[in-house]
Amino acid sequence: MKKSLIAFVLAMVLGGGYTISAFAQTKPDVLVRQRQSAMVLIGKYFGPLGLMNAGKLPYNADVVARNAVLLDALSQMPWDGFTEDTKGEKSRALPEIYSNPAGFKTAQDNFRAAATKLVGAAKGGEAPAKAAIQELQNTCGGCHKQFRAP
Amino acid sequence: MKKSLIAFVLAMVLGGGYTISAFAQTKPDVLVRQRQSAMVLIGKYFGPLGLMNAGKLPYNADVVARNAVLLDALSQMPWDGFTEDTKGEKSRALPEIYSNPAGFKTAQDNFRAAATKLVGAAKGGEAPAKAAIQELQNTCGGCHKQFRAP
Repeated sequence: MKKSLIAFVLAMVLGGGYTISAFAQTKPDVLVRQRQSAMVLIGKYFGPLGLMNAGKLPYNADVVARNAVLLDALSQMPWDGFTEDTKGEKSRALPEIYSNPAGFKTAQDNFRAAATKLVGAAKGGEAPAKAAIQELQNTCGGCHKQFRAP
Repeated sequence: MKKSLIAFVLAMVLGGGYTISAFAQTKPDVLVRQRQSAMVLIGKYFGPLGLMNAGKLPYNADVVARNAVLLDALSQMPWDGFTEDTKGEKSRALPEIYSNPAGFKTAQDNFRAAATKLVGAAKGGEAPAKAAIQELQNTCGGCHKQFRAP
């Protein structure tokens, strides 16, 4: 039983592109897939909120509250995937990520703070929630403009 | 300003494969990408915990606590992507997902409950945390065995 479970973990982890002897060294293509996965899900959960804020979808407090919590978790996920050794992988990441690490870190922190703020604002009613959605959206756009190819 | 923000949302959302008139009808290929993205990230954050539980990586309480919270959020994300209209998309999803929806729902609920339990167990020290990691891993494997192609 124990053996089969270890085999299961090894299969899962090796399948993910990890090496057992140096777990920290996740392969560059896996790092890119992981960070892009986080962005896909941020899009999934931000999408309806952006539409509500733009008046294109009716405001739904339950959806805002739920998505805010999920976005708060997702906002922590992409950043450790932007390692120097991923520079050669196909993606829209711009070189400025690596030439301006302090600016990139600030953009991450702004996004994370805005996501956390939305969790609280979502409990305060439509007006403060929409203001926080707008703020979060600005941090998406600000980072993409500077650090992601169009 | 307002106009450019709406354009930004539309571009983002349309880029994600949504239609404005029927937001709920996300395209099948996008649904598959979203649910696979959730699985990629579940692998990212479960990977180290599985290795710790198997004695292949030193136990690190901080990593377990952080990853448990992220896994708890991620455990909610894949399921609305398994809609009937994704049957034709390339993926490892097995037909039993659709022929046995109650069983699939139970497997999801088991996984979600085990992820939530790990958040609490992670605060209780190595032994209970590892037991909860093991339980979570069993729910991954149980679902994959029945509902995912090898």
